Amino acid sequence: MVKIGLIGFGYWGPNLVRNFSIQKEGKVTVIAEAREERHLQISKIYPEITVCSNSDDLINNSNIDAVVIATPVFSHYKLAKQALLAGKHVLLEKPMTSSVDESKELIDIAKSKNLILMVDHTFLYTGAVQKMKELISSEQLGKLQYFDSSRINLGLFQPDVNVLWDLAPHDISILNFLVSNTPHSVNATGISHTNNGIENVAYMTLNYQDNFIAHFNCSWTSPVKVRSTLIGGDKKMLVYNDLEPSEKIRIYDTGYNHSSDEEKNKIMVDYRTGDVFIPKLSTQEALFGVAFDFIDCIINTKEPLANAELGLEVVKVLEASQKSIKNKGAETLI
Amino acid sequence: MVKIGLIGFGYWGPNLVRNFSIQKEGKVTVIAEAREERHLQISKIYPEITVCSNSDDLINNSNIDAVVIATPVFSHYKLAKQALLAGKHVLLEKPMTSSVDESKELIDIAKSKNLILMVDHTFLYTGAVQKMKELISSEQLGKLQYFDSSRINLGLFQPDVNVLWDLAPHDISILNFLVSNTPHSVNATGISHTNNGIENVAYMTLNYQDNFIAHFNCSWTSPVKVRSTLIGGDKKMLVYNDLEPSEKIRIYDTGYNHSSDEEKNKIMVDYRTGDVFIPKLSTQEALFGVAFDFIDCIINTKEPLANAELGLEVVKVLEASQKSIKNKGAETLI
Amino acid sequence: MVKIGLIGFGYWGPNLVRNFSIQKEGKVTVIAEAREERHLQISKIYPEITVCSNSDDLINNSNIDAVVIATPVFSHYKLAKQALLAGKHVLLEKPMTSSVDESKELIDIAKSKNLILMVDHTFLYTGAVQKMKELISSEQLGKLQYFDSSRINLGLFQPDVNVLWDLAPHDISILNFLVSNTPHSVNATGISHTNNGIENVAYMTLNYQDNFIAHFNCSWTSPVKVRSTLIGGDKKMLVYNDLEPSEKIRIYDTGYNHSSDEEKNKIMVDYRTGDVFIPKLSTQEALFGVAFDFIDCIINTKEPLANAELGLEVVKVLEASQKSIKNKGAETLI
Amino acid sequence: MVKIGLIGFGYWGPNLVRNFSIQKEGKVTVIAEAREERHLQISKIYPEITVCSNSDDLINNSNIDAVVIATPVFSHYKLAKQALLAGKHVLLEKPMTSSVDESKELIDIAKSKNLILMVDHTFLYTGAVQKMKELISSEQLGKLQYFDSSRINLGLFQPDVNVLWDLAPHDISILNFLVSNTPHSVNATGISHTNNGIENVAYMTLNYQDNFIAHFNCSWTSPVKVRSTLIGGDKKMLVYNDLEPSEKIRIYDTGYNHSSDEEKNKIMVDYRTGDVFIPKLSTQEALFGVAFDFIDCIINTKEPLANAELGLEVVKVLEASQKSIKNKGAETLI
Repeated sequence: MVKIGLIGFGYWGPNLVRNFSIQKEGKVTVIAEAREERHLQISKIYPEITVCSNSDDLINNSNIDAVVIATPVFSHYKLAKQALLAGKHVLLEKPMTSSVDESKELIDIAKSKNLILMVDHTFLYTGAVQKMKELISSEQLGKLQYFDSSRINLGLFQPDVNVLWDLAPHDISILNFLVSNTPHSVNATGISHTNNGIENVAYMTLNYQDNFIAHFNCSWTSPVKVRSTLIGGDKKMLVYNDLEPSEKIRIYDTGYNHSSDEEKNKIMVDYRTGDVFIPKLSTQEALFGVAFDFIDCIINTKEPLANAELGLEVVKVLEASQKSIKNKGAETLI
Repeated sequence: MVKIGLIGFGYWGPNLVRNFSIQKEGKVTVIAEAREERHLQISKIYPEITVCSNSDDLINNSNIDAVVIATPVFSHYKLAKQALLAGKHVLLEKPMTSSVDESKELIDIAKSKNLILMVDHTFLYTGAVQKMKELISSEQLGKLQYFDSSRINLGLFQPDVNVLWDLAPHDISILNFLVSNTPHSVNATGISHTNNGIENVAYMTLNYQDNFIAHFNCSWTSPVKVRSTLIGGDKKMLVYNDLEPSEKIRIYDTGYNHSSDEEKNKIMVDYRTGDVFIPKLSTQEALFGVAFDFIDCIINTKEPLANAELGLEVVKVLEASQKSIKNKGAETLI
Repeated sequence: MVKIGLIGFGYWGPNLVRNFSIQKEGKVTVIAEAREERHLQISKIYPEITVCSNSDDLINNSNIDAVVIATPVFSHYKLAKQALLAGKHVLLEKPMTSSVDESKELIDIAKSKNLILMVDHTFLYTGAVQKMKELISSEQLGKLQYFDSSRINLGLFQPDVNVLWDLAPHDISILNFLVSNTPHSVNATGISHTNNGIENVAYMTLNYQDNFIAHFNCSWTSPVKVRSTLIGGDKKMLVYNDLEPSEKIRIYDTGYNHSSDEEKNKIMVDYRTGDVFIPKLSTQEALFGVAFDFIDCIINTKEPLANAELGLEVVKVLEASQKSIKNKGAETLI
Repeated sequence: MVKIGLIGFGYWGPNLVRNFSIQKEGKVTVIAEAREERHLQISKIYPEITVCSNSDDLINNSNIDAVVIATPVFSHYKLAKQALLAGKHVLLEKPMTSSVDESKELIDIAKSKNLILMVDHTFLYTGAVQKMKELISSEQLGKLQYFDSSRINLGLFQPDVNVLWDLAPHDISILNFLVSNTPHSVNATGISHTNNGIENVAYMTLNYQDNFIAHFNCSWTSPVKVRSTLIGGDKKMLVYNDLEPSEKIRIYDTGYNHSSDEEKNKIMVDYRTGDVFIPKLSTQEALFGVAFDFIDCIINTKEPLANAELGLEVVKVLEASQKSIKNKGAETLI
């Protein structure tokens, strides 16, 4: 039985505890939460869990095998480093850290100590993303050509990170999980409608070597909520609409073939539209899968789906996007 | 009665003739079409219209007051210049010309000869765009903050212009018509999935001085057809979905107010969601309005809604977008 | 080459002529239209077609092999009888006649004279209905359990027939085409919101022996347009939404199995939801298929899909529904 | 503080307790639940509530002012009668009882003892139904003409009541609440696809004197979930779609005027379509409103919105519908 300590019982923490509480091979035994007014609430629901105020106590608790960190991003690096150095496996909330350097250092420490370092990119564990992975791995879409995501709504303005750091990690992690290539550069533009200069609307393009492109449209100021992604392959294309209650993925037997007419220096394109298929998806709660994978990897010394390398890739993109925005959209190497 | 000559009876020409044929104060009397196999077809439907093969004959026809040019873009400049120099008013298909310099020269000639020079940005004459203009002019949306448009589908690959030149003119012209400011720069990225290097997927950001931003997502390779634009103001926001048969515009009484808490250096944002209103729109065919405006401006020496300055602005944006794409997305002044 | 005369060039007549004009083995050679002001219009589009004012002249024209009757319902019987007696094959607009007796008499005459008698139930020739027929014939839906159709909008009030006679023929013909059983009785209710007592809202249930039921909801006074039908089988179910531009049919791998727990006198039901499949449909114009089938059946002495027996079944249901409404919804045998 | 006993902690009981637990003037102090394995669960969440197995103990508890009955329908009458006779105010789950006679008797007892008798027709307390009541009361829709409801999905087959008893109470209660007239008769048809003869698909028409009609389409065997109602007035019409997360009500400025052309014995109808308005709705949980109303009526001796007369009307319709189905759809007086 893997014994787990959770740091941070804010917005996401309760979901983590609930999903760890139904695992067979692991459980949360200690929670550290600085806001002491929440301790009673925790005890009421989970009387068997020890609650403390100080994360140091939790990290140094020798009865703990692993630490789950669900605190604001700026504190991830320090807490995770401390936990790894104390010999604990670590599951970090996304995004992994505030900088590429911090993420790299955590990865190095984890490797040197043979510890699991995982990032809670929950979406990778949804039925929808699992189905897309299966479709792409089995080459049903053919060679991938583009990934185009919109994640917009009237959303909470974050006081310290821009809308890309807030919303894009979901889509970047999904993209990284689905596509084996890595982007070499990013272009990003955006605007702040408040006087703190933090972008509440932003657009990002990821550039790849292999004739593939990815684009992200993120906003906290849309009157309508959109959570959708188009993925185009040269055999089929799909639309992933996360707001649909069950029909999240539609696969279009649609595409085109092109040939060049060399004499006329022209492109001839044949278009094709066909059936649409909406697969049934697993409805298991994604966070259950995160908790299971973390425990399973600790027990069996495996690499999680949402491993630290993937988490690092997400931070690399975000860091480069910020540079590009400051550079007025100029291409920024990742 | 304004007598009009039409050059080019291809895809759009028949629609132009049909809409001019129901005007009270003007009519098409001559059509020039190089493909002689189409002459019989024209004569069958419009026995009273003279058909010729050579545009020179039409332009030099002294019984013609105005020329409508519905040929491929590359020929616009030459034909329009010739017609203006021959003293004819000119209506050009969009986009106006292939370059800013060409458009400017046409404008100068038209001004010096007191001739109407108009571009067929048909969308300006739709009930939907007219309603948006009315909402924005009467300040019902408040101060505008962003314009975000998607125009994607499995569309015809054009052999000589990229997807921005093909699809974005619609949205740029609508934006220019609705917003009084002009953008100072553009960032654009894109990709070509054929070996002619012409982008079939492209993204563009327009940057403005006054805390306003515009973004365009254009693709010929989407499995789903999308024609929608979000416009955000600080009082209300709207969604314009051109694929809806009648409910094209939805106005959201939605927004947020922000204030800065100076002590804590934080932004406090109040969100508000309210009623949604879907106005009834005029269903007059937009191209009827184009034809009417052209004739009306000739008779009454007025400026058309879709005037040459607006047409020039569209070409400026397109030309700059092409430079930005070649420059790997770098900011390009307009 | 089958030579066809058309009686009635009103709303539907032009569509019929257009579709017959592109057939290889038949063509319309004469049109009879009482409103002489329309004659010029016909001649302009179809200079090769003879136009006359009197249907007698057309029916007695010995150069005509077949007659298409596109006049108001009340005149169908008289004109069709006259044409059949004159030895012409007949295609009648739907509904076939105003009464069962009339339809039966026409069928008897056609049989005795070995003439084709067909009813223009156009929907049978749509890609959507053809696909549903294929799915049901190949038993992919399993044993059929219900058919539930809604055809409502803000529609033209007819002055002489109620909303069932106006709208339900489409759905009844589709039902009859798809389902081999025939209903034994009908229940119908409705209401008239005008003072002529003609129902503008009506509901109808068709009762079958074999544990199958059909229901129809028709209205001319709905703020929204609905054209949809649910068809349930014990293996799969489908939704046919005729307003969808291309995705008209959705097949749900959804159902339930029931067993009775005899001891507890209870029903145990297992539910199942699965994939959804949206087949690509043929986009050939349905009326082209009608014209082709009529000509093909004349040449090859075959029975058309939309044969007179099916047309009679539709009239039987309509006549019984009217009796049921007058009888306050009581079951009325068909 | 009104002290309340709840009988039945099954599917709906927990929701009732939760909503009573946040009221200011009342609270649940005792729960009777026959299944003793649930007692621990209750105590864990609500340690301050007494739990017992026997409803008699609860009803006879002199510290209880009111009883909420959330047991299967067949037991409503007996428990409610017992509680009323013991001097308790009663809130009954819907439908009120299994028969009209039972409901009437309960009403008589409650009146004679000046006790509140209320039925939990929760929908009356939703923001959507409240908004519709407001629109209709203020005559914005004009004179009502029809009410047409669909409530279909792949739903749990009930072992003892048919689909109308299961699903229609929601819609009948909404109809009764919105419309002041009462129906004089019902026609109902249906079918059972299991061998217990209990209808899983059923259709019902309610007939009114005043040129108004209501129709209900209920099914447990639909592949798609529909929860929608059309309400037509002679000024405006509305669509109530309960599956929409926030835009549940759309008001159409749509209608028609009719006049009779007496000479020609014809009806002339003018159609009108206009704006659509989607009002913001209160998002307070409906069941909170039920709990509040019950307590408020007890304290202030008022009549609840969901009073026993309305509950009785629902049972009258259901009972008559069952007779009509057995009578093959014949009109059955209510």
